[in-house]
Amino acid sequence: MFNHFCKTPLWECSRTLAAVAQGQQPADLVIKNGRLVNVCTAEIQEPIDVAVAAGRIAYVGNADHCIGEGTQVIDAAGQYIAPGFLDGHIHVESSMVGAGEYARAVIPHGTVGIYWDPHEICNVLGMDGVRVMMEDAARTPLKAMVTFPSCVPAVPGFEDTGAAIGPKEIAEAMTWDGVVGLGEMMNFPGVLGGNAEAHGELAETLKADKVITGHYSIPETDQGLNAYVASGVRCCHESARREDALAKMRLGQYAQLRFGSAWHDLPELAHAITESNVDTRFANLISDDTHPHTLVSEGHLDHILRTAVACGIDAVTAIQMATINVATCFRMDHELGSVTPGKCADIVLLDSLEQLNVTATIIDGTLVAQDGQALFSLEPFDYPQWVTQSMHLGLEITPETFAVAAPAGSAEGSTVTVRAMEVASGRVADDEVHVPLTVEGGQLHSSLEQDALKTFVFERHRETGTFGVGFTKGFGIKRGAMASTVAHDAHNLLVVGTSDADMALAANTLARVGGGMVVVADGEVLGLVELPIAGLMDALPAPEMSRKVHHLEQTWEQIGCAMASPFMTMALIPLACLPQLRLTNRGLVDCTTFQFTSLFVDGEN
Amino acid sequence: MFNHFCKTPLWECSRTLAAVAQGQQPADLVIKNGRLVNVCTAEIQEPIDVAVAAGRIAYVGNADHCIGEGTQVIDAAGQYIAPGFLDGHIHVESSMVGAGEYARAVIPHGTVGIYWDPHEICNVLGMDGVRVMMEDAARTPLKAMVTFPSCVPAVPGFEDTGAAIGPKEIAEAMTWDGVVGLGEMMNFPGVLGGNAEAHGELAETLKADKVITGHYSIPETDQGLNAYVASGVRCCHESARREDALAKMRLGQYAQLRFGSAWHDLPELAHAITESNVDTRFANLISDDTHPHTLVSEGHLDHILRTAVACGIDAVTAIQMATINVATCFRMDHELGSVTPGKCADIVLLDSLEQLNVTATIIDGTLVAQDGQALFSLEPFDYPQWVTQSMHLGLEITPETFAVAAPAGSAEGSTVTVRAMEVASGRVADDEVHVPLTVEGGQLHSSLEQDALKTFVFERHRETGTFGVGFTKGFGIKRGAMASTVAHDAHNLLVVGTSDADMALAANTLARVGGGMVVVADGEVLGLVELPIAGLMDALPAPEMSRKVHHLEQTWEQIGCAMASPFMTMALIPLACLPQLRLTNRGLVDCTTFQFTSLFVDGEN
Repeated sequence: MFNHFCKTPLWECSRTLAAVAQGQQPADLVIKNGRLVNVCTAEIQEPIDVAVAAGRIAYVGNADHCIGEGTQVIDAAGQYIAPGFLDGHIHVESSMVGAGEYARAVIPHGTVGIYWDPHEICNVLGMDGVRVMMEDAARTPLKAMVTFPSCVPAVPGFEDTGAAIGPKEIAEAMTWDGVVGLGEMMNFPGVLGGNAEAHGELAETLKADKVITGHYSIPETDQGLNAYVASGVRCCHESARREDALAKMRLGQYAQLRFGSAWHDLPELAHAITESNVDTRFANLISDDTHPHTLVSEGHLDHILRTAVACGIDAVTAIQMATINVATCFRMDHELGSVTPGKCADIVLLDSLEQLNVTATIIDGTLVAQDGQALFSLEPFDYPQWVTQSMHLGLEITPETFAVAAPAGSAEGSTVTVRAMEVASGRVADDEVHVPLTVEGGQLHSSLEQDALKTFVFERHRETGTFGVGFTKGFGIKRGAMASTVAHDAHNLLVVGTSDADMALAANTLARVGGGMVVVADGEVLGLVELPIAGLMDALPAPEMSRKVHHLEQTWEQIGCAMASPFMTMALIPLACLPQLRLTNRGLVDCTTFQFTSLFVDGEN
Repeated sequence: MFNHFCKTPLWECSRTLAAVAQGQQPADLVIKNGRLVNVCTAEIQEPIDVAVAAGRIAYVGNADHCIGEGTQVIDAAGQYIAPGFLDGHIHVESSMVGAGEYARAVIPHGTVGIYWDPHEICNVLGMDGVRVMMEDAARTPLKAMVTFPSCVPAVPGFEDTGAAIGPKEIAEAMTWDGVVGLGEMMNFPGVLGGNAEAHGELAETLKADKVITGHYSIPETDQGLNAYVASGVRCCHESARREDALAKMRLGQYAQLRFGSAWHDLPELAHAITESNVDTRFANLISDDTHPHTLVSEGHLDHILRTAVACGIDAVTAIQMATINVATCFRMDHELGSVTPGKCADIVLLDSLEQLNVTATIIDGTLVAQDGQALFSLEPFDYPQWVTQSMHLGLEITPETFAVAAPAGSAEGSTVTVRAMEVASGRVADDEVHVPLTVEGGQLHSSLEQDALKTFVFERHRETGTFGVGFTKGFGIKRGAMASTVAHDAHNLLVVGTSDADMALAANTLARVGGGMVVVADGEVLGLVELPIAGLMDALPAPEMSRKVHHLEQTWEQIGCAMASPFMTMALIPLACLPQLRLTNRGLVDCTTFQFTSLFVDGEN
């Protein structure tokens, strides 16, 4: 497929490149005195220079003859020259900043291109939301290549989202400039079951000659995985065990070894590389989700490469896994992913193959970051009102809204057993547990003794006024409430708390600021991260967002929560494709049988 | 790009494949008890079964659950299961049989797909000729994927061909079903020199998102090669030295290691693989040109694989070089080149990794050859008259036509020195040598003593009646004459001989039968291979063609020629892009200065 992310199509500059390669015309840029990480042959070549013209590589060798008047010369001084890094699967929204600020954060770490799945904003704002984020991204040098969200809503029929995507929408999206594939097909049960919608989306992607990205998250590598791969899914980032990754590579599916802020799969998966002596061309390194704090303190693919090397993967092999192997996965290796003639001049300089610190990033032949600093300017992106005002609650929320009536006829002081969702830090699954609560004033209340907290999910996209009611165990908060509009995947308004008044304050605070995350106690807002972009992001630089999130986490501690990242754990409460019990705006969902269920163990819904 | 060579597009059968993989629907075919040559991970997996449906691979593993009523089961009995072989660069015409018969010859040797450059017929019959050959090929299971001829004529301005191809024609050809790229861009001087026509053809190919194949035949691997690769040429089969192949791989160009009937590059080039420990993903194995005798006695890619292994290349690596690496070169690895779910079921069974004998070939899930025999029927292809009657000579050829007048004013019995082309067996280049000839009857004659033979090239496409006159040294024939319409690249009528009468007989014999190769002596036709398809091929099975050519070679011996393959050597006489002196229908060409030159050393043209 065409790469619309190059400065100049090759067919417009092939004569220029030929002339520059032969010294008949000066290069725009020459990098001198480097050691080339040759990802084609997996060798180090030194000394080497690279000459660039029209945003593409014209020559690799001794480039003295390419230097003329006006040629910018960068002395690599013995540093390593490698292709710029490509992330084969990421969600920008997880970094809680806009796409432009995301680019500014990752480019200094050597990232030149991302294959991103704007799945979260699509759930809130649909195709238009994706398009706005693409416009934000397009202001930066980052090659922000979209794999269009495939599973919106995540579990149709169990929640209300801001949008729905089906084969028709995918067919349209595939005609957009900048869309290079289909986002992670999480509905693998649908693919395995022959679901017409799921296969319809695959079909539209294949017809457009684009790449289907995957999400096959079960430890089954035989019939199911074969069925999934046979359906055309070219890559998958959901491998928990080394044998999962190996199985995928053996079946010709790119195994995207993940090392995200909350998904530390790589140390386990690295064994698939280090212990099996396989050809590694089908291995990629990807991030999936990176918190702002990780971006700021650790980096992006450079951090993942360091981790890979620490896990015993050869540095050149690891760099292949974040460059040419990714480009080949997306069938764009004729344009991206190697420092070879004709390719886009997307290049990083690395201080060493041990530290893997990026000292310079070049995209399309322009030096865009140096020594950790982006060199391009970026004005705040002017997101339109329909993006920044995405809180469309269909009811006035008051403390009374949070009253949970006991079943009709329950005697005052009697016990009612409710189904509760038990969460745990760092775990994706929750458990269904049964909690006895005492009827007081005809109602059920949060129980601090049992750590059973009222939990509400309010639809916020279409003013339906609907909300779901449940209880959560595991957060351990002793007072106040917390609320968030980052609540996968519908991103409705999620509220957990000890008191109805604080829950109402938390909910209304987010309604007022256009979404975000908030902690309140005793009528006071302790911490607030405004996320006015669809209730998911803010147009802040990543360091500022990192500081705000860090402050919020401290206020969570103030109300008694000892979890490392409670907002991550909380955000999964409504995700009805995960086991066991989940709460959406339509009610409690038994995610083992995929049916709505009653709050009351002995009652009816 | 789409692969129009699959039985079923994946988007039409993904649900079927998913169902078959899970045993919900019986497979069409199951291959049991094999050892998989996994070209993705470069491993052998055993025991393994492969299940096929809708012409594609549905499942790889233990496929008992895929076998149902109507499932064809092939017991591999411990043999190796490998992807069918793909040839990344071949000319069918070199095998002197039609495309259908070529397919019948190579499929039993494991070839499932070819990227062919129908360059010879295009020179004779233009785009229509290419189309007819494609129709012939399309009757067989072979995936005959065209890289459209780029250099017709080979050296514009120096000869008359049947057609001319430029950017406009390339743009049109790129819209044809079955055209997947541009044929070998032999005009590398034009590419390096910024020639508008050459870059125009590259541009049209790139705009169509297809692959440019190369021909860079000089031992220069620095500025020139960089310029050539930077212009978008993705692969090249012209490497004579190991360092040429390595340089190409390092620059991200696929090095197509050649082992054709007359081009034995592989033993030298194999050192690039065996001695350097490079990643081999950019190495391919290709044939370029295969004589009918080689096809029949040795095979095709199986023979090349055996040679690669004999040269010390690991068998699995070698198989990658003839399967997945080729498919990736053409960005079709999502459809072809590996035995993995979703791919076309193009599979071979191999007796061992040492012998590499192909015992079965499966294309699109159908067993198409077994134990050396093609299992599909093939009627003779009905080539239209404009193909079989391609001899359009614009003059009546008589013995008098071959009179070579001495320069005006030459005295009877005096000596005139002529420029002659000295040929040698197995060598592409010829030398310019100067031969003194005696004026007899006002004319110059072939000199048996000096082995200097009259050589004529007659235009045969447009009835211009033009012809070029020269002398050739090196064939050593003592009587008679030989003629051929296989005369690169214009394929005009080439005649070499000792007597004017025999030369006329040879020429007129070929004119009568529609082209071919002939040996005559003393007024008698000793050997004749009719090649009525454009004067290049006959619609015979390859074994029959091999026998006819073998007989012809014997008759060449009868007239005193000791060369191994004189017709190959002879065929290059008119190829004015090779050094040093060449003869076209327009005259003698000095191929070092690219100017016409005089037959007479002291004279004018």
